[in-house]
Amino acid sequence: MSLAGDLARALRSGDRRALSKAITLVESTREDDRSAALELLSTLGVTGEHSFRIGVTGVPGAGKSTLIEALGLHAIAAGKRVAVLAVDPSSQRTGGSVLGDKTRMTRLSGHASAYVRPSPTLGVLGGTAGRTREVIGLCEAAGYDSILVETVGVGQSEERVASMVDCVLLLVLAGAGDELQTLKRGLLESADLIAFNKADGDRARLAENESAALRASLSISRPHGSPAVLTVSGQEGNGVVALWSALVQYQEAGVQNGSLAARRSAQLKAWFGAALDEALLEVFVRRPDLLPARVAAEQSVESGATSPLEAAQRLVAGLLPTRGG
Amino acid sequence: MSLAGDLARALRSGDRRALSKAITLVESTREDDRSAALELLSTLGVTGEHSFRIGVTGVPGAGKSTLIEALGLHAIAAGKRVAVLAVDPSSQRTGGSVLGDKTRMTRLSGHASAYVRPSPTLGVLGGTAGRTREVIGLCEAAGYDSILVETVGVGQSEERVASMVDCVLLLVLAGAGDELQTLKRGLLESADLIAFNKADGDRARLAENESAALRASLSISRPHGSPAVLTVSGQEGNGVVALWSALVQYQEAGVQNGSLAARRSAQLKAWFGAALDEALLEVFVRRPDLLPARVAAEQSVESGATSPLEAAQRLVAGLLPTRGG
Repeated sequence: MSLAGDLARALRSGDRRALSKAITLVESTREDDRSAALELLSTLGVTGEHSFRIGVTGVPGAGKSTLIEALGLHAIAAGKRVAVLAVDPSSQRTGGSVLGDKTRMTRLSGHASAYVRPSPTLGVLGGTAGRTREVIGLCEAAGYDSILVETVGVGQSEERVASMVDCVLLLVLAGAGDELQTLKRGLLESADLIAFNKADGDRARLAENESAALRASLSISRPHGSPAVLTVSGQEGNGVVALWSALVQYQEAGVQNGSLAARRSAQLKAWFGAALDEALLEVFVRRPDLLPARVAAEQSVESGATSPLEAAQRLVAGLLPTRGG
Repeated sequence: MSLAGDLARALRSGDRRALSKAITLVESTREDDRSAALELLSTLGVTGEHSFRIGVTGVPGAGKSTLIEALGLHAIAAGKRVAVLAVDPSSQRTGGSVLGDKTRMTRLSGHASAYVRPSPTLGVLGGTAGRTREVIGLCEAAGYDSILVETVGVGQSEERVASMVDCVLLLVLAGAGDELQTLKRGLLESADLIAFNKADGDRARLAENESAALRASLSISRPHGSPAVLTVSGQEGNGVVALWSALVQYQEAGVQNGSLAARRSAQLKAWFGAALDEALLEVFVRRPDLLPARVAAEQSVESGATSPLEAAQRLVAGLLPTRGG
């Protein structure tokens, strides 16, 4: 009957247009869209019990999109349904890159078993960055069981992607030397699997050597559970099958030893915390009946009668009746 | 009687130790310190009716600290009492620079009419960045009438400093060329006054030429109220007197045409908004009686019964009784 109910049904039947529509709805900042989005997410419930969520990180130029396309096509050949999403920490993207991703992934995005997410609407405040978790759920509800989340940009995107996937695949380049050293610590710490990408032609040998060195170094610095280190070429295809196998092995081990369930549970808790912060900050937007109290506090500040800090704390205290004594 | 009352009295009498103690209190994140800090700020009330708040921005290496010391010493000679503070957008400063500032400003910080704020406690989450507005007020209550706020680091610090001062002084260097071009737009837009610093020796001529060119260009791009462009040498002292005069003229014009009052009023409103966001986000810290409802919502999320978004919105809605219909 409801928009959300209809959309949920169409989405579950695998209707791609319904998925795109649902994503747009969930990313919308319009107040009337938001209650429908909430109803939709509530109808769909918990998703992804059998899905595999993979984050792909690495410096710009590491070949993330090309490798994602190669991995995605291989996963499809292995019977999977693949969705590709992107996480960008900045909401003020200046365009180009993500539209470019779609163009680059033409083979994958044209495939019936793949959904490559179109570019998020540019300029929408807070748009995509804040909704990737929800979009993963929508893709899972639509039957995609392999979710590849690409980081766009550097900085906090690695942290963000790690908070929403089962496994972080870090792409590095052989011969990057100093550049890698400076980035290494932060990126390596959140990596569950590392691949030297573009290991083709002249660089294949170098990649083998550097991966062996990194493997040795990690076995010392992270003796328990040091990540596997592989070499791959997204462009030429060498090592793609082995990389996918390593990813699947990582997932299977996590299922068996319970670490996957623990990770998802912790992520759910953090996601709730972020949603709670957002709901608290939006309280005056969503509850116009509370506005007069806010306006009065603001006037008291502007007249100089109350300090901003005091007025803010009094206002919040006044909104919340004391409970349980 | 109270700590806050005693501190307010000592502060107003010009006791420097009381000022340092008050700053530490206001920057503290300890819960019991916060109520005392709030009481102190409330006791002190609105400050700075006759003060002049100057922000000093510019790329690293533009000579901000040296110029601030020269300006400060001149202002003291003109009968002012000078406080020097710093704004850093990142709360994760890795040390050095601000401690360095104090060492560099030895002539100023040793002066009886100056207060150079010591380095903010390193590693304290959110420490200083969020409290500079309050610290300005404390300095004003302690009798400092010329507040120089230095930006440390680049990025959002220019925006932050502009939101808390009466006048933004941008320092640029002649011959910086391309580097300047890329930064120019953002920095120039928030500048109320521009000075080519290090205009001494061989660079004096170049600074004169470039300042004339910038002046001409600004008179076209900002025909109404384009900022004054001067040359100065913080190191040698050339132009310091003229720069201080230009700053004072800017202030006096603002008092007369009402723009200063309007700017401060808008800043007060924005400050209240930021304090309100902070109070909302801290609601569960400050109101333990609300925690059981939060724990219940979190459990519902972890069990998979409720989506994080829905649980968060329901929790917030449940905390707030409907008002006025």
